[in-house]
Amino acid sequence: MYYIGMDLGGSSIKAGLVTDNGSIVFKKKKMTRVSEGSIIVMNDMAMLVEEMLEESELDGREIRGLGVGIPGAAREDGFVYFATNIFWTNVQLGKELSQMTDKSVHVANDATMAAVAEHTLGITKDAANSVFVTLGTGLGGGVILNHQVYSGSHGIGTEIGHMVVGHNADYDCTCGNNGCWETFASGTAMKNHAHRLLEQGEKSILTSAIEDENGVISTNLLFEGAREGDDVCLTVVNRMTRYLAVGIANLINIFDPEVIALGGGISASSDFFMNDLKAMVAERIYVKTMNVTRIEASKLGNDAGIIGAAMYAKSREG
Amino acid sequence: MYYIGMDLGGSSIKAGLVTDNGSIVFKKKKMTRVSEGSIIVMNDMAMLVEEMLEESELDGREIRGLGVGIPGAAREDGFVYFATNIFWTNVQLGKELSQMTDKSVHVANDATMAAVAEHTLGITKDAANSVFVTLGTGLGGGVILNHQVYSGSHGIGTEIGHMVVGHNADYDCTCGNNGCWETFASGTAMKNHAHRLLEQGEKSILTSAIEDENGVISTNLLFEGAREGDDVCLTVVNRMTRYLAVGIANLINIFDPEVIALGGGISASSDFFMNDLKAMVAERIYVKTMNVTRIEASKLGNDAGIIGAAMYAKSREG
Repeated sequence: MYYIGMDLGGSSIKAGLVTDNGSIVFKKKKMTRVSEGSIIVMNDMAMLVEEMLEESELDGREIRGLGVGIPGAAREDGFVYFATNIFWTNVQLGKELSQMTDKSVHVANDATMAAVAEHTLGITKDAANSVFVTLGTGLGGGVILNHQVYSGSHGIGTEIGHMVVGHNADYDCTCGNNGCWETFASGTAMKNHAHRLLEQGEKSILTSAIEDENGVISTNLLFEGAREGDDVCLTVVNRMTRYLAVGIANLINIFDPEVIALGGGISASSDFFMNDLKAMVAERIYVKTMNVTRIEASKLGNDAGIIGAAMYAKSREG
Repeated sequence: MYYIGMDLGGSSIKAGLVTDNGSIVFKKKKMTRVSEGSIIVMNDMAMLVEEMLEESELDGREIRGLGVGIPGAAREDGFVYFATNIFWTNVQLGKELSQMTDKSVHVANDATMAAVAEHTLGITKDAANSVFVTLGTGLGGGVILNHQVYSGSHGIGTEIGHMVVGHNADYDCTCGNNGCWETFASGTAMKNHAHRLLEQGEKSILTSAIEDENGVISTNLLFEGAREGDDVCLTVVNRMTRYLAVGIANLINIFDPEVIALGGGISASSDFFMNDLKAMVAERIYVKTMNVTRIEASKLGNDAGIIGAAMYAKSREG
């Protein structure tokens, strides 16, 4: 038996045929035609399924279910409340895609799907309770409790990036609140912080570097600068690390998990801040004699979304 | 069959014989001789069990298990990591009390026990997922997920009072961090805030009222003053309410529960702030179209600790 895993993102729809045990046997992707609206995007998703089956020469009857990770919040039945960066609100993704493909469709947040992948094959394998933190443009979360996905009573839980952890003088969160975790610990947070420091006239190797990039600061650039000892880059990385520790300590005090896994683009640089992070978390957790939650970079790379979505479909199909 | 529920507090040990369905048939309490140390206190607990059985004329064999709620963090097997206000660290409560009473003993945090009681008989009955928030001297939490107690991988989870939610200029938390939720939303937080305002020279009916009470500000006094329109009292209650909303919105974004129940001394005044609280939470939650988590004052009074501990023992005895 096979499962299809799909990862619906702001720039591309990635899909894969995945075996029972989480191996991808075939992959394909399409551009996400965001501006065309949800019906066109769902049509493209259905096409992608069809093309994959044709090209892989797999019998459609061998596909047991279809999982889709979305950049937003969805209900158990596949109703998408919203997905901000693809401009969807109240889209019947589960129902529509199920009709188009004649498969049962299971939808959840993309960070949840990555959490499932890590729990199936990666760094949180064998952990009953774990939290997956994606550090990318924003900060997302996927929670596994008692070896099962936890996403709340209505599918809108584990929005850990919108846990308020302080006051942010730089900017308000897109959600309308001030002080959400992701405004301190994310790519966007780091870039805004760097821009403020540069505007305040701080000297930095960033100044010339971003001229070469037409004014764009990437998190890679910030980590490179920090590794070279640039003060502005170090200030930015250190504040991000400190707030990452604040939020992770909160999650440990709340969930007391075996593992907290870090994924997303920033986690690729976690070797640079991991030791500091662990020391700061140890200082902050409530039961200091029980510093037992492992903090680890995620193991699976870009395919985590596909694998996780497929394995989520598998778990839902029973 | 009966269960014994015990509520170990800083001033008293309360115990009750409880039926299968959560009715208390006999109650008794003793002073907690905190300064005598944990062995004496555990002896007193065992004596209390013995006396209850004698006085109730119940056959000890009809007792199926003993649950104990403690003001601290404990492991599944009854090992108490610490309980600050009775000065316990690393106490083998489960093992010792089990030997002394010849019963199986099940230990958990007192807020968890209150959460179990509310889930069995109270305001969170029938809710698969709920969070119980005790607003007393500090702020504690009990979490029910999928109709079961959730307390983490090592019994140190759901310490929601130590979720950092901002910067607190008044005082640091006893846990060593600054900005824990309980430093904004608890009796202690309200009293510290009131003292600061009075020291800053703010006029208030508190000034004469606390002279009558030898300088002691009670939360009751603060709510009475707020009901009478006193500016200082209103400022204190409003800030507490605002931060209560910040933390509750965080919990909704994380757990997406059906119900958040408010217990503890301050919840007795929740009629005064409940409407404001609900409006502030509605503004702050991430999925604003899904303002579906009920926020309710707890139903059970002082007996929640006993009932919950007994029902926890029942759930653990299977």
